[in-house]
Amino acid sequence: MKISVIGAGNVAWHLSIAFENHHHQVCEIYSRQLSKAKAITSMLYQAEATTSLDFSESKAELFILAVSDDAIAEVCSKLVLPENAILAHTSGTRSLNELQQLMVSYHDLPIRCAVFYPLMTFSIQKRIQMKEVPFCIEADEEMAENQLVKLAQGLSKTVYLISSQERKVLHVAAVFACNFTNHLLALAKEITIEEELEFDLLKPLIKETFQKAMAAEHPADVQTGPAVRGDNSTMNNHLIYLKDRTDLFEIYEIMSESIQQWHA
Amino acid sequence: MKISVIGAGNVAWHLSIAFENHHHQVCEIYSRQLSKAKAITSMLYQAEATTSLDFSESKAELFILAVSDDAIAEVCSKLVLPENAILAHTSGTRSLNELQQLMVSYHDLPIRCAVFYPLMTFSIQKRIQMKEVPFCIEADEEMAENQLVKLAQGLSKTVYLISSQERKVLHVAAVFACNFTNHLLALAKEITIEEELEFDLLKPLIKETFQKAMAAEHPADVQTGPAVRGDNSTMNNHLIYLKDRTDLFEIYEIMSESIQQWHA
Repeated sequence: MKISVIGAGNVAWHLSIAFENHHHQVCEIYSRQLSKAKAITSMLYQAEATTSLDFSESKAELFILAVSDDAIAEVCSKLVLPENAILAHTSGTRSLNELQQLMVSYHDLPIRCAVFYPLMTFSIQKRIQMKEVPFCIEADEEMAENQLVKLAQGLSKTVYLISSQERKVLHVAAVFACNFTNHLLALAKEITIEEELEFDLLKPLIKETFQKAMAAEHPADVQTGPAVRGDNSTMNNHLIYLKDRTDLFEIYEIMSESIQQWHA
Repeated sequence: MKISVIGAGNVAWHLSIAFENHHHQVCEIYSRQLSKAKAITSMLYQAEATTSLDFSESKAELFILAVSDDAIAEVCSKLVLPENAILAHTSGTRSLNELQQLMVSYHDLPIRCAVFYPLMTFSIQKRIQMKEVPFCIEADEEMAENQLVKLAQGLSKTVYLISSQERKVLHVAAVFACNFTNHLLALAKEITIEEELEFDLLKPLIKETFQKAMAAEHPADVQTGPAVRGDNSTMNNHLIYLKDRTDLFEIYEIMSESIQQWHA
């Protein structure tokens, strides 16, 4: 497939490389800053870096819109695509309908819109096994859907058709499972730092906890700790220790309550 | 070393096997239910199962008290130990002082008390690499401390001298890093189940999140998601979606606030 990528962040970088590794042709990489686009094209076979959103002369059949959520509207307002192109955004939060509305409001010709969402967190420094990344596909017509599913199946072993509503729910779940858990790990590290203890002491336990949760039928089945045990004296001791740290105190209370509600 | 283990739960099981693997002699395994003690002794070379807490005739030099926190007081009230024995509990939450007080109040002879705390979550079904388990040692006299450190160093590559206060702080941190994170994973699974989505879709992302957090200088350095981005429209969307789920709504709010406070 001939593909152009709009955006030069982590998602754009990882997808562009993956497309070429799987014998697709990356035509253009767009960024507002040419140097950022060039940082990606320099890794590719014959892609061109561009700061123009006029793709009327492009040979690409698919345009991957991999910019930040807030930049989508502005990019769409300036975007000129060749006839019959598919425009697919990579956002976990924006609906297919939003993209369609934007393209209709700024353009006369109807554009085939789609979602090509890799359910993964990408960092520039870190290689990702794209085969393991679930791809969530959605399109407003069957032919585009089939093309994107085929493209995704070439990159990954896990490809799902996911509606915008389902994608939103997955995103909420991911915030709990990833963003909030990461913050809890940050808070735990802070607690150890304050007492000049090494966070490394906790790492084997954290690793084991996660492996157990992932291997379990349901993470709730392997819940441990004072809340699920109903060990009130330990919980009170912990709350007394946390009494001067409002945020930690509140999180401790509300998470313990939620655990006890669940396991009541 | 000659060791007896009081208790027949997961910690007792894993430690007993580890002691024998490292050429220590396990003399007795105590449980209120003989069958539970026998389940462990059947795995060992010559340990005896017992339901009596009178160890006056025991050859053991070290007694590992691996019962639940709530059972410690009752066991101590009945415990009869041979002269010069060391009694070490394996609890993350109980102080050395508590154990000393209990033993003084129930016994005429002074007992050498200690803590031998493996900072790990143990399940009966799951083998643990004991070499990777950090051991936290504390004792009320140097000779006992040295003996326990030597014993732990034989089992594990990570052995720390940790005071009761430090152990308490580690335990608070572990509640955040392990118990609460596990619960967040359970909540995330519940969100996917309600919408008939597969939790497996999120597993690669969860795995990557944890690997990143563990590899980072500080987990806060790799925080992602709408809260740290200040993406209020996504957060509002999520809160509207969660409005009928009081516990999820509150956790979402308080965790997002805490993330924003941190990264302000």
